[in-house]
Amino acid sequence: MKQHTVNTFIFDVYGTLFDVHSVANKCNQYFPEKGDQISKTWREKQIEYSNLRQLMGNYETFYSITKDALRFAVKKHNEELDEKSEKELLDKYLNLTTYPEVKQVLNQLQGKRLAVFSNGSHDMLDPLIEQSELVDSFNNIISVDEIKQFKPTIASYDYAATVLKVKPEEVLFMSSNGWDISGAKNYGFQTAWINRQNQPVENLNLEPTVIYEDLTGILDWK
Amino acid sequence: MKQHTVNTFIFDVYGTLFDVHSVANKCNQYFPEKGDQISKTWREKQIEYSNLRQLMGNYETFYSITKDALRFAVKKHNEELDEKSEKELLDKYLNLTTYPEVKQVLNQLQGKRLAVFSNGSHDMLDPLIEQSELVDSFNNIISVDEIKQFKPTIASYDYAATVLKVKPEEVLFMSSNGWDISGAKNYGFQTAWINRQNQPVENLNLEPTVIYEDLTGILDWK
Repeated sequence: MKQHTVNTFIFDVYGTLFDVHSVANKCNQYFPEKGDQISKTWREKQIEYSNLRQLMGNYETFYSITKDALRFAVKKHNEELDEKSEKELLDKYLNLTTYPEVKQVLNQLQGKRLAVFSNGSHDMLDPLIEQSELVDSFNNIISVDEIKQFKPTIASYDYAATVLKVKPEEVLFMSSNGWDISGAKNYGFQTAWINRQNQPVENLNLEPTVIYEDLTGILDWK
Repeated sequence: MKQHTVNTFIFDVYGTLFDVHSVANKCNQYFPEKGDQISKTWREKQIEYSNLRQLMGNYETFYSITKDALRFAVKKHNEELDEKSEKELLDKYLNLTTYPEVKQVLNQLQGKRLAVFSNGSHDMLDPLIEQSELVDSFNNIISVDEIKQFKPTIASYDYAATVLKVKPEEVLFMSSNGWDISGAKNYGFQTAWINRQNQPVENLNLEPTVIYEDLTGILDWK
């Protein structure tokens, strides 16, 4: 499976490097009965709103979208949230933990070009990585906010390749999100789907180059 | 709330004029334990795939997407479906029933320009309307497939307005889908959200012009 042209590793952030489960835990503190439902709706709406805003040509930062999605989720499940609690929930996104294998995998890839590429805006991404054990791991932290084109548009992945001055086929792109892997493949990156939830491949005629259950698998590409 | 400029009524189809519940019932026949889950995933993926294909510049007809979404849903819930059963499930989309109030509301609007505008391709839309009690109700059956731009892009709603030769503000657009109402409002239509499921308004800064619990409310706009 190994493709010897790869010299650059680009990582999605939420769900790929960082475990968003602690956001769900925090939801359960505020809403003991409905925390799981609320965090599920929150995440779904967060993704849906970024898609819809892109489709409508109506860009907002991912931080703003994340807040809008949270407000919708709370209302949908007939709950309320004061401003202070809302901020505490949103702040969880700045303070996530990495999956157990991440740090050692990145250590073994040192010497390669490593970058993060996320729909998150820098006001979310930068504090998150700064507080984490990954603070010194990446050459580049790239946000779609720099061109205001969300993944999975071609323009977004092309922007990342342009910033990194690489050809698409020299990149291995990692994400745990099926739609993100589809978009990266559609653009021309080689893709490793980190299928942490053991889901079926998306039916979009854009099969990932490889599928791993966690990031350890990408060491095949060193 | 009435806006006297409205001379054209444009209706979304699935969930707005036609009840898709019978598709869920059919799923329950094939998968007695998991029918509800499978039909829920099916519908979610149907919408997600049309969004993603639009974002990736990778158009397929809604019929094809509906098939892809069904296959994903069946696999996700660890079930199988032979070709004949798959076709029977898909064919349910050609044979839906209207919501109880639809026919009489449309009758009372006769004399106005009435159109259907759907993400569905004509191979789905035309047989559906042909077999229904609405066969003589509409002046136009418009599909995004004619320009291969899915809702909620501005280009899609603009195409409908162009076909109908109307200014956006002369149109009242009806949909039960919050994202569709957001897109129509973003383009410039007046919008009536048919909020059959009693959901909160989408947090996209695009509030509907009016909200009704079923289509009866639009008779205010006669």
